[in-house]
Amino acid sequence: MTLDPQFQLFLAASRERVQAHLDEWLPPESIPPQRLHQAMRYAALGNGKRVRPVLVYAAGQVAGAPQERLGVPACSVELIHAYSLVHDDLPAMDDDDLRRGRPTCHKAYDEATAILAGDALQTLAFRLLAHLPQLDIPAEQRLHMIDELALASGCRGMAGGQALDIDAVGRELSIAELENMHIHKTGALIRASVRLGALCADSIPDDTLRRLDRYAKCIGLAFQIRDDILDVEGETADLGKTRGKDEAANKPTYPALLGLDGAREMAGRLLEEALDNLSAFDGEAAPLRSLALYIVGRTR
Amino acid sequence: MTLDPQFQLFLAASRERVQAHLDEWLPPESIPPQRLHQAMRYAALGNGKRVRPVLVYAAGQVAGAPQERLGVPACSVELIHAYSLVHDDLPAMDDDDLRRGRPTCHKAYDEATAILAGDALQTLAFRLLAHLPQLDIPAEQRLHMIDELALASGCRGMAGGQALDIDAVGRELSIAELENMHIHKTGALIRASVRLGALCADSIPDDTLRRLDRYAKCIGLAFQIRDDILDVEGETADLGKTRGKDEAANKPTYPALLGLDGAREMAGRLLEEALDNLSAFDGEAAPLRSLALYIVGRTR
Repeated sequence: MTLDPQFQLFLAASRERVQAHLDEWLPPESIPPQRLHQAMRYAALGNGKRVRPVLVYAAGQVAGAPQERLGVPACSVELIHAYSLVHDDLPAMDDDDLRRGRPTCHKAYDEATAILAGDALQTLAFRLLAHLPQLDIPAEQRLHMIDELALASGCRGMAGGQALDIDAVGRELSIAELENMHIHKTGALIRASVRLGALCADSIPDDTLRRLDRYAKCIGLAFQIRDDILDVEGETADLGKTRGKDEAANKPTYPALLGLDGAREMAGRLLEEALDNLSAFDGEAAPLRSLALYIVGRTR
Repeated sequence: MTLDPQFQLFLAASRERVQAHLDEWLPPESIPPQRLHQAMRYAALGNGKRVRPVLVYAAGQVAGAPQERLGVPACSVELIHAYSLVHDDLPAMDDDDLRRGRPTCHKAYDEATAILAGDALQTLAFRLLAHLPQLDIPAEQRLHMIDELALASGCRGMAGGQALDIDAVGRELSIAELENMHIHKTGALIRASVRLGALCADSIPDDTLRRLDRYAKCIGLAFQIRDDILDVEGETADLGKTRGKDEAANKPTYPALLGLDGAREMAGRLLEEALDNLSAFDGEAAPLRSLALYIVGRTR
């Protein structure tokens, strides 16, 4: 798919900012324990799509948040995402060898180091929000952001969704059960990304936050459906991870439940609903609009 | 050893409070994902010594913090500790089958659930500090507590110490290297427990915090030396974990470096130094004094 040139610039600038911040805020490889620090950097600085940090920047723009405040939450959500990938890839979980086109963390290092690196990446995500002076927003608002991020990533959010996913292997799920799993596993953190970006504004009207939240819910699900479709029709080289894993692992997916066409249709409907929720906004929501199109059209 | 009756009451009351709070704040087993929630409760509600939460209560008393503020930090440090035990016991780490007299979390459940339960326990620790209204202390102070807890448990603290521990297996360490490992692996969270308790006071004089911090540093190291000694001379049934693991795993320990007598002497010296740092305080520090004696004299 061709991306709108303006959005390409937005995407590149956001990714560059996140990369530079992560590089600065991750522990240096030169100080002990070096191997742990290397593994953390390996997992977080890889060639990711950075969808969640880009969402922080894009939602922050809609809410009128000063851009310099957005770096911390952008990195926090990415660190949570990175930790979850490291742990999900472990032999006891999804047992994946390839991630973002490179060996997974436990393959590049070892299992013990990967477990600890994931743990420490999670800790760092919360430390950034509590500690970094760059984030010149009131303490109450920072606590609110930590609370939202913790809720979205813990047992009632991402980790809970991963547990539902494990329980689901080899079982027949209804569409509602599959949706519930994804709302937790990937949706919660995507929603938190949008909310954290918006919460960086000095104040945010309730209905703006509600619209952004509904937008996020739609694209979170669309993102997952696209993931499922790509697992069926993508190429391993493009994906940067092993293709056909879901079917091989007997995992419930949207294409399995709805067929490929049905899954594509559902992603299209969610895209429409996401865009509807942005109709009250003007040009400031252009990146969020393009991001929705990008998520549903992406090939990796 | 016989405990001072006053301290026995303090210990029992603190443990009861922590148990009740954890029971309330951990996710109920009845709501999905049930297996994850069960594993979290299994890991956190077991028969632990609760040294860290007791330290929060005891340090809070010295600092004059209202007791009702201490429940949240007491549970937060315990949740971090519980998560670290779950992950440390995994086959890829210390590969332990027994913990607190029961099967380890991955034995009672499975490895994937244990990884996720540890992850979600960590998240919950931060959520409690950010979220719970019980903690009627100013937002700035709460952020400070989250920052301290994250620093103590991440790659520059507990997780980093665990990485140093892994690197050390089969290597000869100097006393300084061994100390550095323990200062991170167990010392950092013990110090954080004392500091978080003290930070619950409306204000805390710098020199009080400094003295408490030095006390915590000494008992943290003494605690570890006692652990090493117990691993040599204790009984598996008393310990609630497998005895002689360190030697079998070729882990560097104080008894290995200093001999049993030398290790006991060092623990004694640290106990003395810990008590010296409490000499400026009166009866309010009685629990901290007894706790130091308890840590060095304990048989499990």
